[in-house]
Amino acid sequence: MSSQEESGPGVGTLLINWALEYDTQKIVHIKNKTIGLLNRLIQLAIIGYIIGYAIIYKKGYQSTDDVISSVTTKVKGVIYTNITDWPDLLITDTTPYNRIWDVSDYVIPPQESDAFFVMTNMIITPDQQRGQCPEDPKIANVACDPKVPSDCKKGERVINGNGVRTGKCVPYHFPNGTTTDTCEIDAWCPVEYDMNPTNVTAVLNESERFTVLIKNTATYSKFHFSKRNILESSNTSYLKGCMYNNHLDRFCPIFKLGDIIDATGEDYNALAYSGGVIAISINWDCNLDYNWDDCTPVYTFARLDNKNAKLAKGYNFRFSNFYQDANGTDTRTLFKAYGIMFKVIVTGTAGKFDFVPLMLNIGSGLALLTIATSACDIIVCYVMKGHAYYKKKKYLNVQSGADNDPDYENFS
Amino acid sequence: MSSQEESGPGVGTLLINWALEYDTQKIVHIKNKTIGLLNRLIQLAIIGYIIGYAIIYKKGYQSTDDVISSVTTKVKGVIYTNITDWPDLLITDTTPYNRIWDVSDYVIPPQESDAFFVMTNMIITPDQQRGQCPEDPKIANVACDPKVPSDCKKGERVINGNGVRTGKCVPYHFPNGTTTDTCEIDAWCPVEYDMNPTNVTAVLNESERFTVLIKNTATYSKFHFSKRNILESSNTSYLKGCMYNNHLDRFCPIFKLGDIIDATGEDYNALAYSGGVIAISINWDCNLDYNWDDCTPVYTFARLDNKNAKLAKGYNFRFSNFYQDANGTDTRTLFKAYGIMFKVIVTGTAGKFDFVPLMLNIGSGLALLTIATSACDIIVCYVMKGHAYYKKKKYLNVQSGADNDPDYENFS
Amino acid sequence: MSSQEESGPGVGTLLINWALEYDTQKIVHIKNKTIGLLNRLIQLAIIGYIIGYAIIYKKGYQSTDDVISSVTTKVKGVIYTNITDWPDLLITDTTPYNRIWDVSDYVIPPQESDAFFVMTNMIITPDQQRGQCPEDPKIANVACDPKVPSDCKKGERVINGNGVRTGKCVPYHFPNGTTTDTCEIDAWCPVEYDMNPTNVTAVLNESERFTVLIKNTATYSKFHFSKRNILESSNTSYLKGCMYNNHLDRFCPIFKLGDIIDATGEDYNALAYSGGVIAISINWDCNLDYNWDDCTPVYTFARLDNKNAKLAKGYNFRFSNFYQDANGTDTRTLFKAYGIMFKVIVTGTAGKFDFVPLMLNIGSGLALLTIATSACDIIVCYVMKGHAYYKKKKYLNVQSGADNDPDYENFS
Repeated sequence: MSSQEESGPGVGTLLINWALEYDTQKIVHIKNKTIGLLNRLIQLAIIGYIIGYAIIYKKGYQSTDDVISSVTTKVKGVIYTNITDWPDLLITDTTPYNRIWDVSDYVIPPQESDAFFVMTNMIITPDQQRGQCPEDPKIANVACDPKVPSDCKKGERVINGNGVRTGKCVPYHFPNGTTTDTCEIDAWCPVEYDMNPTNVTAVLNESERFTVLIKNTATYSKFHFSKRNILESSNTSYLKGCMYNNHLDRFCPIFKLGDIIDATGEDYNALAYSGGVIAISINWDCNLDYNWDDCTPVYTFARLDNKNAKLAKGYNFRFSNFYQDANGTDTRTLFKAYGIMFKVIVTGTAGKFDFVPLMLNIGSGLALLTIATSACDIIVCYVMKGHAYYKKKKYLNVQSGADNDPDYENFS
Repeated sequence: MSSQEESGPGVGTLLINWALEYDTQKIVHIKNKTIGLLNRLIQLAIIGYIIGYAIIYKKGYQSTDDVISSVTTKVKGVIYTNITDWPDLLITDTTPYNRIWDVSDYVIPPQESDAFFVMTNMIITPDQQRGQCPEDPKIANVACDPKVPSDCKKGERVINGNGVRTGKCVPYHFPNGTTTDTCEIDAWCPVEYDMNPTNVTAVLNESERFTVLIKNTATYSKFHFSKRNILESSNTSYLKGCMYNNHLDRFCPIFKLGDIIDATGEDYNALAYSGGVIAISINWDCNLDYNWDDCTPVYTFARLDNKNAKLAKGYNFRFSNFYQDANGTDTRTLFKAYGIMFKVIVTGTAGKFDFVPLMLNIGSGLALLTIATSACDIIVCYVMKGHAYYKKKKYLNVQSGADNDPDYENFS
Repeated sequence: MSSQEESGPGVGTLLINWALEYDTQKIVHIKNKTIGLLNRLIQLAIIGYIIGYAIIYKKGYQSTDDVISSVTTKVKGVIYTNITDWPDLLITDTTPYNRIWDVSDYVIPPQESDAFFVMTNMIITPDQQRGQCPEDPKIANVACDPKVPSDCKKGERVINGNGVRTGKCVPYHFPNGTTTDTCEIDAWCPVEYDMNPTNVTAVLNESERFTVLIKNTATYSKFHFSKRNILESSNTSYLKGCMYNNHLDRFCPIFKLGDIIDATGEDYNALAYSGGVIAISINWDCNLDYNWDDCTPVYTFARLDNKNAKLAKGYNFRFSNFYQDANGTDTRTLFKAYGIMFKVIVTGTAGKFDFVPLMLNIGSGLALLTIATSACDIIVCYVMKGHAYYKKKKYLNVQSGADNDPDYENFS
């Protein structure tokens, strides 16, 4: 045998020989109840993890695709407000607040991708024009004495205020008739009187009865799957009359704003009074190995901003409607709008059987099985009674220095 | 030898010995054509998978970065509409529709991040003021008999309607001169007559000739790579005259709306009539191991909402322009705007050679090679002719009970 | 022994035997300084990589969660502009530019999710009405000769222009008094004179003093962790007076626009003049194994669009305020608005100790250790002095043909 090896065969022969050989590990097969059982238990745990968790629970036999989605929303509802007789009014002139409100009045801006804002409370300052007027005395550093001209420095901006000082000190008339002196400013006049109509009730607290139709199409392009949240089985009369309810009608795409806020655990009027941010999550997680009809949207609702905030709570912003009055002077109606920002967040992963991920999971599982052997080897060779015996069986000791021994072929 | 081992060397000596030892598996080298070939074939398949799929096809030798992107858009185009002579008109007063339309008329809101909306069809209700007027008879439950006062309950909102019932029943005059009785409501008056000018043609169906310039900068910060979709090689005159075309000019950042809709396979007028949502995808997948000039954007277009929907098809919303009339009364022009919502979606992953992911892929590949041995072992030890012989060669049987045998060193 | 094996035990016995057996690899234990040291070094490198990089540096012992976030913004600031005395004016009538600007004038649209736009420069065209007027001569192909009627073809749109040709050729009066002939168009008249007030300074270049309050709530729902960027330890007076500064006050949620632009390395006036897109990134990467109070936001700022662009630089769009004049004619004020688009991008990953990912990392690490053995095997069996000796020790050669040998049990 050794003489055959020492004769020099050609490269081709070597290659063919190599291709027809098979190397497999020499295994030491130990019959021992303790270590045998331990080994099988560890192996079982690993196989259980691979099959139970990685393959079945985590669906390791599926390839997946992320959802592509389109969302459009349409709010409906109309309110007639007349706050003149409300208790605890903080303002004297309620005229701007006694009016009708429809969707193009309270949805700002009228169109947003994947979101909509509903104004629920506001401070209205009608008929502002550019000019000079006294600054709001609630702003810091604007009180002045008409006899001390240096109190109001011309050209100086009022920090967090409404304009730029003209240099004069003029009387400011509160809505209740009293008067104080503040710096005159270049601004949109008269300046906003930053006071909500009441300190308990949102002007549009009835907006909890508004409804929103959410149209959502979810697409899994890899699986050529596309579906709407308006089920094809519904008809026009259903769509006109239905209302989403987590228990009674989970597939109606029409939501009452009050129901959404209830589902987040918030109080509608409190949220409407100071504003906030609400997430409407639509989840399309689907197992496309099953009936595709079972792939339906699941809605969840959560408040995104912090309701327990001590500072700078809620959400508001200012906007204006601009026009010219009968004399051609630029005029605007300023709104400080408090309201609820609804964000529609569509998530989802679809899975479908695929050979490649299944193989990858089995492969990496088999690699993990070596952990069982490694763990048991330590016990067998160092811990167990009779470990020296097993160690000797497992290890074949080979001394170095063979290179010094010309006859090493006979060494064994 | 055994006596040396039994003498107690120090910990340092043991450590040094440990560091200078090398453990390798004892291999059973089987010369058998069948199993040898099978083994090599399985190994080849695994290596082929690792090199061909995981490393080359999936670019396992690259580290990757996701694109950071900025998108701004600018629509251009102007239409003069005169629908008076259109066939199949459904309305009698066409005055509000005979006018010029430019970008600040039909893009609502004027600025949106990563999206723009083009109004393509609309119902205009000019000169609405807050007051009392009869509700639209097309709304459910508003027909009434003036002799039956209970038909209209004061203060009750009209569901899906335009206002709140005043309690009166008044005549509603259709545009064609006929009359019916409906509940009077507090609302913006007169209420919208919810009827498109025609039932076939979008008012702005010529908007297919509008163009949009999309300015997109893609950045891969990990690789210090940044590029615009407006190629640096282009000049002003090119940019003024060019038009994107998938075959002729793939790098022009100016798109005709009609071309975009064509690329999605939709009919422009049908889409413009009822509205829809279109995705403009810009993909920047790049292999930065190659010439960075080859990293160019690829545009694709798709309709995101469901065009075959039976219910609640298309996309529309209402918005108003607010002003005061000559008497200082709040007035508005209400638009029910149908149109196309374009969403610009930028995706991309760049890869560049990196040693770490290459090593990780090779490592996990080597681990997979054990599958070949495992599979062949089963065949060799249980299936193949002569399997008992090979099994005996592979396994070294060790009986337990050595611990009962003080002389186990001689046991073998 | 062999006779016992050949007697046929029941399946139950076989199963029990199988469960109580343990297979471990036969190891060839080589005492050789060179290869031993090499082996340990490679093992050390792999273990170092696993523990140091995958487990400690990449936090392989933690399960992670991605941030869910809510962002609202509020810009503050007011400017009084009077550009009449500015040098290098390019326009003659500065009236529309001498005015007060507050937040509802320069933030367009007033509300956007995760973004806000601040107008910093503009071209104002007041009092446009729908009618006929000469086209802007700066547009291509609109110059004409009144004696050549074919120059202006009725009904033809002006490409990139403001309207549709009426067929007439009429004189256009430049603001400086000179005159030229251009095609008359149906348009909003008079057409915009597309010229910035100056070619160096943005009209609202003082907007660098504007401030923005960013309210951001970050939530890691898996870990029931939620925190605002307005720290609970701050109070109202702090919040009114503080200003973000990377060195002095990293936790103030109020930012001066000029500071943001400075942090990106841009020049404020240059950016304000032609517009641009700025990213405000808020990163909430947190190690929740440590004190949760240490989980604080980190702000970074970057310009997203390409400032070195030769073509189509900056960001602008057109919007209008619509109203009726005293005669009831539809009128609008057109703004070409240049400005800075701020995008608030919230990122973050939180980690917390978890047993499962730790085990997975250790498992895949052990699998990598086989690389050390594989590498050394090549050296031992093919490269090293005395390799034939080691190879012989490692490999047990088994000849095929055993199946031809009925007495193969004695073959060895």
